[in-house]
Amino acid sequence: MSGNTFGKLFTLTTFGESHGPALGAIIDGCPPGVPVDEATLQHELDRRRPGSSRFTTQRREPDRVRILSGVFEGVTTGTSIGLMIENTDQRSKDYSRIKDQFRPAHADYTYHHKYGLRDYRGGGRSSARETAMRVAAGAIAKQYLAGRGIRVRGYMSQLGPIGIEFRDWQAVDENPFFCPDPDKVPELEDYMEQLRRDQDSVGAKISVVAEGVPPGLGEPVFDRLDAELAHGLMSINAVKGVEIGDGFAAVAQRGSEHRDEMTPDGFLSNHAGGVLGGISSGQTIIAHLALKPTSSITTPGRSIDIHGEPVEVITRGRHDPCVGIRATPIAEAMMALTLMDHLLRHRGQNQDVAVTTPRLS
Amino acid sequence: MSGNTFGKLFTLTTFGESHGPALGAIIDGCPPGVPVDEATLQHELDRRRPGSSRFTTQRREPDRVRILSGVFEGVTTGTSIGLMIENTDQRSKDYSRIKDQFRPAHADYTYHHKYGLRDYRGGGRSSARETAMRVAAGAIAKQYLAGRGIRVRGYMSQLGPIGIEFRDWQAVDENPFFCPDPDKVPELEDYMEQLRRDQDSVGAKISVVAEGVPPGLGEPVFDRLDAELAHGLMSINAVKGVEIGDGFAAVAQRGSEHRDEMTPDGFLSNHAGGVLGGISSGQTIIAHLALKPTSSITTPGRSIDIHGEPVEVITRGRHDPCVGIRATPIAEAMMALTLMDHLLRHRGQNQDVAVTTPRLS
Amino acid sequence: MSGNTFGKLFTLTTFGESHGPALGAIIDGCPPGVPVDEATLQHELDRRRPGSSRFTTQRREPDRVRILSGVFEGVTTGTSIGLMIENTDQRSKDYSRIKDQFRPAHADYTYHHKYGLRDYRGGGRSSARETAMRVAAGAIAKQYLAGRGIRVRGYMSQLGPIGIEFRDWQAVDENPFFCPDPDKVPELEDYMEQLRRDQDSVGAKISVVAEGVPPGLGEPVFDRLDAELAHGLMSINAVKGVEIGDGFAAVAQRGSEHRDEMTPDGFLSNHAGGVLGGISSGQTIIAHLALKPTSSITTPGRSIDIHGEPVEVITRGRHDPCVGIRATPIAEAMMALTLMDHLLRHRGQNQDVAVTTPRLS
Amino acid sequence: MSGNTFGKLFTLTTFGESHGPALGAIIDGCPPGVPVDEATLQHELDRRRPGSSRFTTQRREPDRVRILSGVFEGVTTGTSIGLMIENTDQRSKDYSRIKDQFRPAHADYTYHHKYGLRDYRGGGRSSARETAMRVAAGAIAKQYLAGRGIRVRGYMSQLGPIGIEFRDWQAVDENPFFCPDPDKVPELEDYMEQLRRDQDSVGAKISVVAEGVPPGLGEPVFDRLDAELAHGLMSINAVKGVEIGDGFAAVAQRGSEHRDEMTPDGFLSNHAGGVLGGISSGQTIIAHLALKPTSSITTPGRSIDIHGEPVEVITRGRHDPCVGIRATPIAEAMMALTLMDHLLRHRGQNQDVAVTTPRLS
Repeated sequence: MSGNTFGKLFTLTTFGESHGPALGAIIDGCPPGVPVDEATLQHELDRRRPGSSRFTTQRREPDRVRILSGVFEGVTTGTSIGLMIENTDQRSKDYSRIKDQFRPAHADYTYHHKYGLRDYRGGGRSSARETAMRVAAGAIAKQYLAGRGIRVRGYMSQLGPIGIEFRDWQAVDENPFFCPDPDKVPELEDYMEQLRRDQDSVGAKISVVAEGVPPGLGEPVFDRLDAELAHGLMSINAVKGVEIGDGFAAVAQRGSEHRDEMTPDGFLSNHAGGVLGGISSGQTIIAHLALKPTSSITTPGRSIDIHGEPVEVITRGRHDPCVGIRATPIAEAMMALTLMDHLLRHRGQNQDVAVTTPRLS
Repeated sequence: MSGNTFGKLFTLTTFGESHGPALGAIIDGCPPGVPVDEATLQHELDRRRPGSSRFTTQRREPDRVRILSGVFEGVTTGTSIGLMIENTDQRSKDYSRIKDQFRPAHADYTYHHKYGLRDYRGGGRSSARETAMRVAAGAIAKQYLAGRGIRVRGYMSQLGPIGIEFRDWQAVDENPFFCPDPDKVPELEDYMEQLRRDQDSVGAKISVVAEGVPPGLGEPVFDRLDAELAHGLMSINAVKGVEIGDGFAAVAQRGSEHRDEMTPDGFLSNHAGGVLGGISSGQTIIAHLALKPTSSITTPGRSIDIHGEPVEVITRGRHDPCVGIRATPIAEAMMALTLMDHLLRHRGQNQDVAVTTPRLS
Repeated sequence: MSGNTFGKLFTLTTFGESHGPALGAIIDGCPPGVPVDEATLQHELDRRRPGSSRFTTQRREPDRVRILSGVFEGVTTGTSIGLMIENTDQRSKDYSRIKDQFRPAHADYTYHHKYGLRDYRGGGRSSARETAMRVAAGAIAKQYLAGRGIRVRGYMSQLGPIGIEFRDWQAVDENPFFCPDPDKVPELEDYMEQLRRDQDSVGAKISVVAEGVPPGLGEPVFDRLDAELAHGLMSINAVKGVEIGDGFAAVAQRGSEHRDEMTPDGFLSNHAGGVLGGISSGQTIIAHLALKPTSSITTPGRSIDIHGEPVEVITRGRHDPCVGIRATPIAEAMMALTLMDHLLRHRGQNQDVAVTTPRLS
Repeated sequence: MSGNTFGKLFTLTTFGESHGPALGAIIDGCPPGVPVDEATLQHELDRRRPGSSRFTTQRREPDRVRILSGVFEGVTTGTSIGLMIENTDQRSKDYSRIKDQFRPAHADYTYHHKYGLRDYRGGGRSSARETAMRVAAGAIAKQYLAGRGIRVRGYMSQLGPIGIEFRDWQAVDENPFFCPDPDKVPELEDYMEQLRRDQDSVGAKISVVAEGVPPGLGEPVFDRLDAELAHGLMSINAVKGVEIGDGFAAVAQRGSEHRDEMTPDGFLSNHAGGVLGGISSGQTIIAHLALKPTSSITTPGRSIDIHGEPVEVITRGRHDPCVGIRATPIAEAMMALTLMDHLLRHRGQNQDVAVTTPRLS
C-alpha cells in the first residue's frame, strides 16, 4: 500500500488534488443492505464545506458528491462503492506565482524531495481539500454504526488560547466553530476578527467521542483500537498530537487515581477513554487532537526556491485562518471509519465462543 | 491482518504470552547484507530487561534472544528472520487467584469480552512482556539505519509531576530512568521510594528523536510518517498520547510563530518535529509519548468477576511501579521500525526522478 | 482488503457495475515522472472494447477513459491516479426479466448467497465489463515497463478445439481474435459462425509473455512471481486454469528433460517459463490461461429462482460467444500489473548488496 | 508484505532455512476456542515427513512441532500462535561443494541475483523443507473447518506418465503415494524403481477437494476464491500449473456442456469445480496442480558458477526423486488455509442481510 488507503477489512482509498478535475474514493468491504443515499453524504459534506462562514476559506465549492457504484435500489450491495466530487472553483492562476517556491510549513519542500516534481496548484494532493472524501466515506460508516447504536460526534474544545468546556451537543451544530458552549461563541468570533486583522492564523483542539461502542473492538498488539485511532486522526492535515482519554494528563496521575474501578453498576470513571489494553471497554471512546495554525498567512515569511535561493513568501490565495474550525467533521469521519473497520474485523475472527459475562452498562 | 504485524514492506510479526513457553517474532523484508548478531540484539534487550534495577519489576528474565533464520555468515540474507526468547521465570501460581477477576485498568475485562476466554496468567498476550520482541526487532532496524547515518534515541522527559529538561545523551545511559539530566536523578529516586511506600504507581513522558533522516519519507495521505509513528507509539502498552514536534502546544500558537522558516542555511526552527505534510523534512524527527501509571498496584481496588459479581482486587505479582521507566528502548524501537519501513517503501516507489534541489543541512 | 484491490506496493483498486453510472479505478504507488496520457490508455481500452467486431458482444460502449488525478503536465506525480469511464449503453430493461432467476454458470446464485441481495442488471459487479479498468491500469504499467525494456504481449493459442501455433507478433493485431497465425483466421471465423448458428459458446486458451524482465523479481515464499501471476490471471472472469512455462506438461517430464541447463551464453531451454524458485530468471516469462465458454447462451437451461423453484433460463441480452476473444488485452494487463508491483517491491528491499555475477543474456 | 505471509484475516507467516537451526511460523487471526494440540499438528506433519518411505528423501527429520503461544488449556485464545520445529539432521558439508555453483532448475541463480548473496546449504529458504510449517498451520485450519462440516482432502492423480483414477479415500492413506487406487500402487512402485536406476526424476499431478464448503466464500473481483487458491497452490515449490474444476479441458468445451444446470434437488454437474464468479457455490471445490520433476538429480548437468564460468553440476545430497509424492498434504494445507481465511473475511463483511433462499444440497 502506498498511503492512499485507510483500514483493513473496511477500506477507504482516495484520489484527488486541490486543483485537479475531481476528488474521488473507493470504499471496499462495506456490508450489504446499508441504506445509503447522496443526501446523507451531502449533509456531512456540507458540514465541512469551504465558504460556509466568514471564518473559513472563501473558495466556493458546492462539493456535490455522486455515488457511482455499490449502491442499488437505495442500499449497499457489498461490492465496492465509487464516489466522486467534481472540482469547480479552481483558480490555478493564484498559484503560478509560487510554482518554484517552497511555502514555509507546507508540504511543498517535502513533496518536492520525495517525488522530484509536484503539482504546485493549491498544494496538489497535500491540500486539505482531500479530506472531503474522508467525510463522504465517514458518512457511510456513521450510518452503519448508527444502525448498531453507535454514535460518533465531535466538537471544538480549544481555539488558540481559548479553552472551551463541553456544555451540550445541540449547540455544536448551531455555530460555525462546532463550539459546544453557546456563551463562548462571541469570544471566538472576536478572536477570529483580531486574527484576520493581524494577518495571522492559530491552532485548535478538537475532541471526538463515540458512544455505544460494544466491548471487544481492537486487535492486539499493534492494531489496538487506540493505535489505529491515533493513526487515523494524526493523518488529518495539520494534526500534531492525539490523546486517548486523559492523554498527557495521565503522566502526572497516580495509579490509584487513573485506574477506572468497576462495580456491577458500571465503571466509576473513564480516565482510559474507553480503551483498555487497546480494546474497547464499552465506555465512551474519547479522543482529542491538536491542530497546528494554518501555514498559509499573508504575513511574509522567509524560504527558499527550488534552486536553493532565498525568497520571501506571501501566501495569498483563499485560506482558512484556523484549519481547526472545519476539522470536527473530518475527525468524526476518521473515528467512524476506524470503528467500522474494527467492528467487521472483530466479528470476522470472534464469534465462536459465547460471552456470558454481563456487559457493564 | 489481525493485529500482530507492524509495518508494510519491512514487517514485524510477534507472538508470545507473559507466562507461555516463549516469545518470538518474524521480521520480513529486511534487506540482505545487514550485519546482525545476537550480541547486538541482546544489548538492546538488556536496556529494557526486567529486574535490572530496584525501580522495575523483580521478575528475573535473562531475555536471551536466539536468531533462528534469515542470517547467514553474519549478515542478513533477505529472507524472513525468526527470533525467539524462552521464558524462564514464570510464576503462574501468582495469578491463579485472580483467574476469575478483572483487574481494574487492565485488559482482563476487554480480552474476556473480545475472545470469550483468556490466558489470565500475568495478562497473557496483553502483558508488556510482549514488547521484548519489539526491542529485538528494533535493534536490527537501528543497525540498518545507522549504516545510513540515521540515529534513533530516546529519554525520559517527565516522571509523574517531575519535568526533566534534556541535558545530554551520555547521561541517559548512566541511570535506570533514561534521564538526560544527571542532577535530576536523586529526585527521581526519592520520588520512586515514596511511591513504593504509598503502594502506588505513576505515569511518565518519553521523548524520542531521529537524527539524519533524509527528506521524503512518509506516504500521503493516510500513511504519513507522523500518522504511522503515532500508530506505532500508541500501540505500546500504557501509552495514552502522542505528539509530533510541538504537539498540543501548537494549539495556542500562531502561524507566524509555528511555521518553520527556511533559508539556504537551513530551517530556522523545528516546531513541526521534522515532518511537513506527513513527509520527513530532513530535520530531526521529534515525538513525545504519555504513559499512564501502572495499573497493577497493591492498593485494593473495586472490580467485578466473570460472573458480574463485585470483588476487591489487590494485584500482588511483580510489577513495575512506573511502566514508563522501561519504555524508552521500546519507543526507540517503534520509531526505528517505522522509519525503516518507510525508507524501503519510499525507495521502492521513488527513484525514477532525480532531485536536483539541494537539501537543507 | 475486501477483494477489489490488486497488488501490494503498486496497487489497483476498482469499482463499477455493468449497468451502473460508471466504472472507475485508483492506482496507487505509481512512481512519479511516468509519461501518461488518455490516448495511451484509450489505445489499450480499444483493444478490448465491446462491439469492435461481429464476434463479440454488440453492446456499444465508447469506453472513454478520463484521468482525474495523479498526472500533472503529462507525467505522473507519484500520488494516487483516479480513472473513470462513464457507462453509456446500459439497457437495463433487458435484465428485469431475469431479476429473480439464477442464470446457470453465472455468479447470480453465489452473489445472492454471499450478500443476500444483488444488482441483477447484466451481472452487476460480476460482469466482465469490470475488466475495462484492469486494461486501463495495465496500460500505465506497460508504459512504465516499456521504459525499462520490458514488453508484455499476448495472443490466442487455442479457440475451442482449434489449436493455434505462434507465428508472429504482427499478425496478432491484425485480426479480432489476437491470433498469431494469419492462415488460421478463416478457420476461426468459420468456427464462430457455426457457433452462432448453434446458439452456443466455447472456451479459449490465451498465452502471455513478458520479455526483458530482469532476474530477481518475486518474493519468496508465498508471493512468488508465478504465484501472484496465477492469482492475477485466475482473477479474470471465466479463467479456470493457469500454467507457467510447460505447466501440466511438466507432470510427464523427467528432470533431465525439464531442467533448463545454463552456459555462459545463456539458458539452453525455457521449460520453466522464466521463473525459478518463484523468482524471475531473466528468461521470457510465459503463462497460459484457460477460459471457459461464455455462460450466457440462448439455448434454454434448467435453473432455480430465488424462491428455490425450478425455472427455464434463456439468456438473451448482448453477449460474447467466446469470452476468450477479448481476454488477451486483459491477460496482458494482469501480467503487466504483477510485474510492475514486483519490480517496485524488489527494489524497495534489495539494493544494498551489489550483484557482480553476470546476467545470462 | 515481503512474501512470507499468506492470507489476509487468517494469516500464516513463516521463517526457516533447510539447514538453519529451526523452522517456525506465526498464525494470526485464529478464532478463540478451537481445540488444538501438538499431536494433531504432528499427525499432519508425519504425513509429509521426509524419510517416511524409500521413495522420498532419506534425510531423517523427526519434525517435532512445538506450540509456543496462542493456545491455553487446550484451546486457542485468539492471539497469535507461535510454532517451531528444530532442525536436527542438517549435513551442511554435503553442500559446501556447490557453494559457488548454480544448480540448474533450482533457485540458486535467481536468489543470487535477487539478494546478491544466499544461504547455499540445501537451497536455504528455497528448500521444500519450508513447507513443513504450511502443513502444521494447515492442520489448525483443517481442525477449524472440520468443526464447521468442511473437509479438505487430496490425492495423487498422475505420476509421470501414469494417470490415476480416483477410487476411494481410504486407499489414499494406505500407500506412500497418496494414490486413491490400490491396484495402481505396484505400477507406481515399479516406475519409481526404474527412475532410481535411471538417476532421474519425474513430475506429478495432485488433486485436492473440499467438501461441505458453504456458498458465499470468495471476494470479488481480485480475491476470488479460485484466484487465491491458485495463488496458494502455485506458491508450493515445483508447482507449474493450477486448474479449478475442468481447468484446461474447458477450453474445448461448449457453453451448453460446461454450464452446471441447477434444479431444486441440486446442481446437475460440477464442471466449475465449486466456484462461480469467484465465489463458492456450495458444491465440492476441486483443484488440480502440476508439479515439475525434482531438479536435484545425479545425472550431470551443464551450468555456470558465480563468476559466470561453465561448470558441470551433479546434485548428490538426499533428495526426493518425485517432489509430487509428498505434495498432497501440502496442497491440502494451502486449500484449508485459503478456505479458512475466506470464511473469516466473509463473515466479517456479510451478516447484515439474511439469506432466505434455500441452499442447494
